[in-house]
Amino acid sequence: MQPVYLDNNATTRLAPDALQAMLPFLTQDFGNPSSMHAMGRAPARALIGARRAVQALIGAADDAEIVFTSGGTEANLTAIRSALAADPSRREIVTSAVEHPAVLALCDHLERAEGVTVHRIPVDTEGRLELDAFRAALSDRVALVTLMWANNETGTVFPVEGLAELAHGVGALFHTDAVQAAGKLPIAVKGTDIDMLSVSAHKLHGPKGVGALYLRKGVPFQPLLRGGKQERGRRAGTENIAGIVGFGRAAELAPAVDLAHIARLRDRLEAGIIAAVPKVRVLGDLRDRLANTSCLAFDFAEGEAILMRLDRAGIAVSTGAACSSGAIEPSHVMRAMKVPFTAAHGAIRFSLSRDTTVPEIDRVIEALPPVIAQLRALSPFGAEEVR
Amino acid sequence: MQPVYLDNNATTRLAPDALQAMLPFLTQDFGNPSSMHAMGRAPARALIGARRAVQALIGAADDAEIVFTSGGTEANLTAIRSALAADPSRREIVTSAVEHPAVLALCDHLERAEGVTVHRIPVDTEGRLELDAFRAALSDRVALVTLMWANNETGTVFPVEGLAELAHGVGALFHTDAVQAAGKLPIAVKGTDIDMLSVSAHKLHGPKGVGALYLRKGVPFQPLLRGGKQERGRRAGTENIAGIVGFGRAAELAPAVDLAHIARLRDRLEAGIIAAVPKVRVLGDLRDRLANTSCLAFDFAEGEAILMRLDRAGIAVSTGAACSSGAIEPSHVMRAMKVPFTAAHGAIRFSLSRDTTVPEIDRVIEALPPVIAQLRALSPFGAEEVR
Ligand SMILES: Cc1ncc(COP(=O)(O)O)c(C=O)c1O
Ligand SMILES: Cc1ncc(COP(=O)(O)O)c(C=O)c1O
Repeated sequence: MQPVYLDNNATTRLAPDALQAMLPFLTQDFGNPSSMHAMGRAPARALIGARRAVQALIGAADDAEIVFTSGGTEANLTAIRSALAADPSRREIVTSAVEHPAVLALCDHLERAEGVTVHRIPVDTEGRLELDAFRAALSDRVALVTLMWANNETGTVFPVEGLAELAHGVGALFHTDAVQAAGKLPIAVKGTDIDMLSVSAHKLHGPKGVGALYLRKGVPFQPLLRGGKQERGRRAGTENIAGIVGFGRAAELAPAVDLAHIARLRDRLEAGIIAAVPKVRVLGDLRDRLANTSCLAFDFAEGEAILMRLDRAGIAVSTGAACSSGAIEPSHVMRAMKVPFTAAHGAIRFSLSRDTTVPEIDRVIEALPPVIAQLRALSPFGAEEVR
Repeated sequence: MQPVYLDNNATTRLAPDALQAMLPFLTQDFGNPSSMHAMGRAPARALIGARRAVQALIGAADDAEIVFTSGGTEANLTAIRSALAADPSRREIVTSAVEHPAVLALCDHLERAEGVTVHRIPVDTEGRLELDAFRAALSDRVALVTLMWANNETGTVFPVEGLAELAHGVGALFHTDAVQAAGKLPIAVKGTDIDMLSVSAHKLHGPKGVGALYLRKGVPFQPLLRGGKQERGRRAGTENIAGIVGFGRAAELAPAVDLAHIARLRDRLEAGIIAAVPKVRVLGDLRDRLANTSCLAFDFAEGEAILMRLDRAGIAVSTGAACSSGAIEPSHVMRAMKVPFTAAHGAIRFSLSRDTTVPEIDRVIEALPPVIAQLRALSPFGAEEVR
C-alpha cells in the first residue's frame, strides 16, 4: 500500500511535469548558461522562462526582481544580511517568536556575535502576532522587519501587507519568509510594501535545493555569494539550471491547485479526528490559516510516539518542523503560543497537498483514534481524565 | 552532427549513471531526510552514501569532514568567512592573483568593506606562484591562505600541499579551491596540512547546484547558512538530495577516468594546432598542468571572434572563465601572467573530458587553422607578420 503522505510542509512530491521539464537539462542540454557558444543557449533561455514563472507565482512587477538561490534558508539569510548592510546606522531587527529556524538562528547569531538588537515579537495563544508589541518595537533604529507569511507548524497566516506598511512607516525594510505561503495562498507583491520575499521550490512540488529571493526594484542590495556575474551579479555560482527549470514548472502549476478542495479535506480530517478522540486542540489561527495545514495537540500522548505508530500504519506526519526534528522539547512555536505542556508534547502536524485524496483522509481518521487511546493508556499522567 | 564540446572547465555533461542514481529521489523517494517517518529513510541513507563517495574522491579521513553546499562558490565563501571568524585578531588573507572570481570578488569586498588586508600573490609568466612573495606575505596576522589547486583558465597546478605547510608555519588556516582539480588529478587530503577544500559536482560530470566543503576535523568552523540542523549544524537548509546523490555517483565514477588518455588527446590537439597555425603560444605551466586543459593564445586574432566561428562549425570552447564572460578585457589570469596584449586577446581555452574522442580532436585541428587565418587577414594589426 502507498503511504499516506501528510507531511507536505516538510517537503512535497516533485511534480512529474516539473521532472519532465528538468530532464533535458540533465541530459543533452547540460551547458552552462554563461557560455557564449550554442551549448549555453538552451539553458540561458530556460532561465528566462523560469524567472518569469516565479515572477508570476508571486505577482512581481518585473522578472528582474527574482534572484534564484539554493533554497529558502539562503534566501532568508541573504535578505537579512543585505538589509543590515544597507544602512549601518540601523542596528535593530524586528521579527517574531515563531519564525522558522532559518531566520531565528541567524538573528540569535547576529545578536550574540555582531551586536544587533533583535526584537522577537510574541504571538497570542492562536499564533497571531501581538500588534501592540510590534508597533512598540518599531523605530528609526530598525533596519529590517522580517516576518513569515505563513507558519510552517500551524499554518497561521500573518497579515504581511499591513505589517510591511507599518515597517515602512519607520523607514525599515520589510522581508517576508513566504516559503510556506507560496503556492498555498495567493501572493501578489506588486504594489505592496514588501521589499523582499523568500520562496523554496520543494514546498510547492518543485525540486529541493532551489529557491528564490524577490527583491523589489530599487531596494538596496548586497549579495551574499560573490564571484561570477550570474543573476545580474546578485548571486554568484553556476546556476542549478535543472532545479531552476523544475521550480519554474512547479510555479506554473501552482495556480491550478484547488485550495478550497484541500481545505475541505483538511476540515474533514479535523472533524473526523475530533469526533473520535477526546481532548484534542486545534492549534493556530482558525480564521486565517493555510488550507493544507492542521496542527492538532493530543493531551497526554507523546507526539513522537504518535508519529512512530502512524508511520507503522503507513501514514507520514510530523511533530513540528522537520528541520528541527530530533528535539524532545516542544517547539519554539508551541512555547510562543503558550500551548500547555501536556498538549504541546502531543502536537502533530498534518500537512496535505493537491495529491491528497478522500480515502487517504479516511484512513487517517480510522487509524489515529486507537493510536491515541493506546498511548494514553500507557501514559503515567492524567490517563484517567481522557479514558 | 553532435557538437564537439571542449568547454568542460565551464561545465560537464551529467554522467548518465549519475542521473539514474538521482531519479528515485526525483520521483517516489522524494522525502525529507530530516523526517522521522519512513519517507525520510531512503533520502537519509542516500546522504550517507554520497558523503562517503565524496570523502573517497578527495581522500579525507572521515565522512564527517564533508559538508554539502550549493556549489563551489558557496564552499569558497563559507571557508573564507569561517576562517576570518575563527580568530578575530588575524585580519589578513593571502591568496593569488589568478584565483577564480568566487574567491577574488569576496576578497575585494572584504578589503573594501570590512578592513581585511588581502595579499594577492603574483604569478610568473607560466602562471606559477611567486614563492618569495608568498613567503614574504606570511605572518601571524594571516587568518587564512586560500590558493586554488588548479587554475580554471590554464590548468596550471599549484603545489598546495607544500603551500599549506608554509601557511601552518605561521599558524594560518589553509583553504584550497579544488573545483577544477577534483576528478582531474589525484587528491588525498588526509595527512596533509589542508584544512578546507572546495569542490563542485558539475565540473566532474555531476549535477549543477551542488558542491562540498571539506573541513578537516578540529578546524574551527562558523556556518554561513544558519537554521535547521542539517549537515551537523554546519549548513542549514533542506538538502538537495537528488543533487547530492548525483554528486556522489559522479565522485564514484571519477577514479576510473583515464587521465593519461585525456592528456594524450590534449597533446594531439596542441601539436596539431601548432603545426598548422603560426604564432600560437601555449599558456600555463607545461610541467604541471591539468590533463584536460589547453589554453592557446593566437596573436592578432580576437578570442570572441574565434569562439563564434568555431561555434558555427559545431565546436564549443571558451575565451576564459565562462563565469566572467561578457568581458572584453583579457582575463585577470592573462594579465597576471603578463601575456602580451595581442596574444591575450586571442586566448582560447580548450577543455576536454572523458567523453572527448580522437575524431573530435581531429575536427578541431581541421576547423581551426582557416578560422585563424581569416581573422588575421581581417586584423588591422600586424597581419603581415603572421601571413
Ligand atoms: C576554480 C573554480 N572555483 C570555483 C568555481 C565556482 O563553482 P560553482 O560555479 O559551482 O559555484 C569555478 C567554476 O565556475 C571554478 O572554476
Ligand atoms: C517557513 C520556512 N522557512 C524557511 C524554510 C527553509 O527552506 P529550505 O529548507 O528550502 O532552505 C522552511 C522549510 O524548511 C520553512 O518552512
